[in-house]
Amino acid sequence: MSDTVIAEEIKIPKRLDTEEVQMVLEHVKSLLEQEDHAQDENLQKYILHLHPADIAYILESLPKEERLQVWELVNSQYDGDILLEVDDWVREDLIASMNREDLLAATETLDADELADLAPDLPAEIVAEVQKGLTERERSQLLEAMGYEEGTVGAIMDFDMVRVREDITLEVVLRYLRRLDYMPDHTDQIFIIDRQEHLLGTLSLADLLVNDPERNVRDFMNTDFFSLSPEEEDTVATSAFERYDLVSAPVVDKENRLIGRVTINEVVDVMREDSQEQDLARAGLEEEDMFASTEKAVRNRTPWLLINLCTASTASFIAAQFEGTVGKIVILAFLMSIVAGIGGNSGNQTLTLVIRAIAMGRISSKSLWTMLKRETWVTMLVGLTGSILASFFAWLVSGSYKIALVMVIAMICNMIIGAALGVIIPLLQYKFDRDPAVGSSVLLTFATDALGFFIFLGLASLFLL
Amino acid sequence: MSDTVIAEEIKIPKRLDTEEVQMVLEHVKSLLEQEDHAQDENLQKYILHLHPADIAYILESLPKEERLQVWELVNSQYDGDILLEVDDWVREDLIASMNREDLLAATETLDADELADLAPDLPAEIVAEVQKGLTERERSQLLEAMGYEEGTVGAIMDFDMVRVREDITLEVVLRYLRRLDYMPDHTDQIFIIDRQEHLLGTLSLADLLVNDPERNVRDFMNTDFFSLSPEEEDTVATSAFERYDLVSAPVVDKENRLIGRVTINEVVDVMREDSQEQDLARAGLEEEDMFASTEKAVRNRTPWLLINLCTASTASFIAAQFEGTVGKIVILAFLMSIVAGIGGNSGNQTLTLVIRAIAMGRISSKSLWTMLKRETWVTMLVGLTGSILASFFAWLVSGSYKIALVMVIAMICNMIIGAALGVIIPLLQYKFDRDPAVGSSVLLTFATDALGFFIFLGLASLFLL
Repeated sequence: MSDTVIAEEIKIPKRLDTEEVQMVLEHVKSLLEQEDHAQDENLQKYILHLHPADIAYILESLPKEERLQVWELVNSQYDGDILLEVDDWVREDLIASMNREDLLAATETLDADELADLAPDLPAEIVAEVQKGLTERERSQLLEAMGYEEGTVGAIMDFDMVRVREDITLEVVLRYLRRLDYMPDHTDQIFIIDRQEHLLGTLSLADLLVNDPERNVRDFMNTDFFSLSPEEEDTVATSAFERYDLVSAPVVDKENRLIGRVTINEVVDVMREDSQEQDLARAGLEEEDMFASTEKAVRNRTPWLLINLCTASTASFIAAQFEGTVGKIVILAFLMSIVAGIGGNSGNQTLTLVIRAIAMGRISSKSLWTMLKRETWVTMLVGLTGSILASFFAWLVSGSYKIALVMVIAMICNMIIGAALGVIIPLLQYKFDRDPAVGSSVLLTFATDALGFFIFLGLASLFLL
Repeated sequence: MSDTVIAEEIKIPKRLDTEEVQMVLEHVKSLLEQEDHAQDENLQKYILHLHPADIAYILESLPKEERLQVWELVNSQYDGDILLEVDDWVREDLIASMNREDLLAATETLDADELADLAPDLPAEIVAEVQKGLTERERSQLLEAMGYEEGTVGAIMDFDMVRVREDITLEVVLRYLRRLDYMPDHTDQIFIIDRQEHLLGTLSLADLLVNDPERNVRDFMNTDFFSLSPEEEDTVATSAFERYDLVSAPVVDKENRLIGRVTINEVVDVMREDSQEQDLARAGLEEEDMFASTEKAVRNRTPWLLINLCTASTASFIAAQFEGTVGKIVILAFLMSIVAGIGGNSGNQTLTLVIRAIAMGRISSKSLWTMLKRETWVTMLVGLTGSILASFFAWLVSGSYKIALVMVIAMICNMIIGAALGVIIPLLQYKFDRDPAVGSSVLLTFATDALGFFIFLGLASLFLL
């Protein structure tokens, strides 16, 4: 089947499932490989059928050169939407490839909150230029939105919402909506405000639709709504949306004046980004992608490996203090890594559970003592089985029951140390307001390595020599 | 401030932010500690003010005994909602504490899809009893929903949706909704079907609200909607909801007949559960919580530690084959753990990136070669710095430039092995349809340990003796 045939056969619906997106990506790649510029037109036609989110996905999935080649072909009317969709590191590349006119064309159709999202990556003169085209209200919204740091509710809120007064009938609201002739995305509720823009309550579209239009907005006003403030962390929004199954939530200032709203699509993005960041952070990585440049990758990975090198060297330096003992009973050299490794693994299980419990708000520093008791107890029970097996192995390779005995004791001790640190390290990080996911594991592994070597070789020096 | 004062002072709104939930939890704990049964009434009053999702959260956050104590106080009319909200392992405990009447009362208000979610945990006789109270249609929905495995779209769909014909006006739809006097949660679109229940298109509430009621449904029918099939994996739903910012999506059978819908709240739950499961799986844990019983915890953790014990023992057994070499140059025993450790750390960075790229559908087994080249190249650049520093350390502690040289070579080799396996292992797991997050890291660490020891001690035996 030739590629042209595929292009005709795949009737592209606007919205694709995971497999279809993969097929489209493969097809784009095959068109790109053809080096035939007559194909560019086919490719362009093909791409412009796609949803901006899918174009963004394709751009993210291509190596830099091909990415810019595809970006050239995208119609400038979609540029703004796509820039909003792509990951930060791709956005930088795309913006760098655009000239002044392209950028102005791409940004002129965006809302204030969308502009604010792009602004940090745009050249300052473009931002200034775009501002001129805004109304007074939009300009102040743009400034407001740009004022909130990443990771706050303010950074994910938008200003696009329907607001009504409380002293009108549903019929008036319905007529007002028809006159507006437009409803912001993800509108599941309308906000009810007074003349000073204080938020009085919300009216769900469901109530608006199912009730007698002659009745008053006030009769269906929900006053125990959930609201956010713009300075709060965005995780407050994610957990509330998750807990209460929200689609949107109003954002109010300290005087309870309505300034914006947060919608579920932004919350889902925050959830996804947070979980990715944690994944990467645990392996000592910042945002990096398979298609990032080599320099970027090297810069990203080096610090972590240097830290690990330091901790590993320190642990091995501690072990080297027992050179005399190991020189006499060489087999200890091979057994000591088992003691260290299993202590680390066991401690990391505890650590994972504690970090998760902290993230879900299940435990606080008050729980320290309860958790310590539980984890040392569980670990001792698990450790007993493990260390008896390990000591059996030690007896097999060394033929000495004394070495096996030292092995049992050292392993249990090291596992208990691992469990204790698995509780203490993240709770301390939490207490001092640091992210417990980052660094906890390095610190723990360092401790179980160094102390594992020390206890095992120390006991061996005492009892075996 | 006494507790009674707190109870009066905290005016509990129905929906709480993260900090407020914590305060409520602390307050419940303090009431529970008072051992004074007169307090039970206070506690009950306090709890019944809360949203079911918050009660579920409190139940999850308490140790078993206190959990059941609180559960006793919860009014049976909320029981069903709360059982749906809590984690599986808590649900088992709660259900086990309920008698027949409690269970019937809790389940009688639930929808077919909600019942299907609870059914696996309910005694069979209760399920049979509840079925009797259902209409024919609900019963067939219940059977349908129970037929889909966990992890499929069918398992998260519900049957609660508004359906209309295409040949009517918007006004007729509006009147129909008022007569229904009810709108399912998370309704952002209405489904348009023909007489055989085939899905023809969707009508957004926005279009329904802003357009002239005299016009026809057909004029605003969206035909390039995204639809799911019940057998698909639920991750197809999560990525589509995320990409296209959906609030709901129809589920159709093979003949395109509308059978249900999936809503964003279910999708958010799936996202959260998946990311938690991956977190735990990486530490070798199944679902476990800080408050699970000791037996459960021990059973959960033992297998992983035994696996690690086997791999660690094998690696140390391989190293032990070089007993002669280490016996002569004892310092090698301490340096070999650095070679192994850094190779493992570096390999795990690659592994993390590759697993993430697979999860996002960015790479397939076709990318193997490109990725291998990139990762070995990046790792070599990072490894060069690292291994020169490590060899300097080796030279410091051993005083031998030959040992330092062996160290550089062994470290770079082992890091490249780690990088290669970090690409190959997850791609192979993916090719054979296994979850690349589970087990990849154990296998990788085993390889970098065993080969790290082997290469370092092997080279040392060749060049230093």
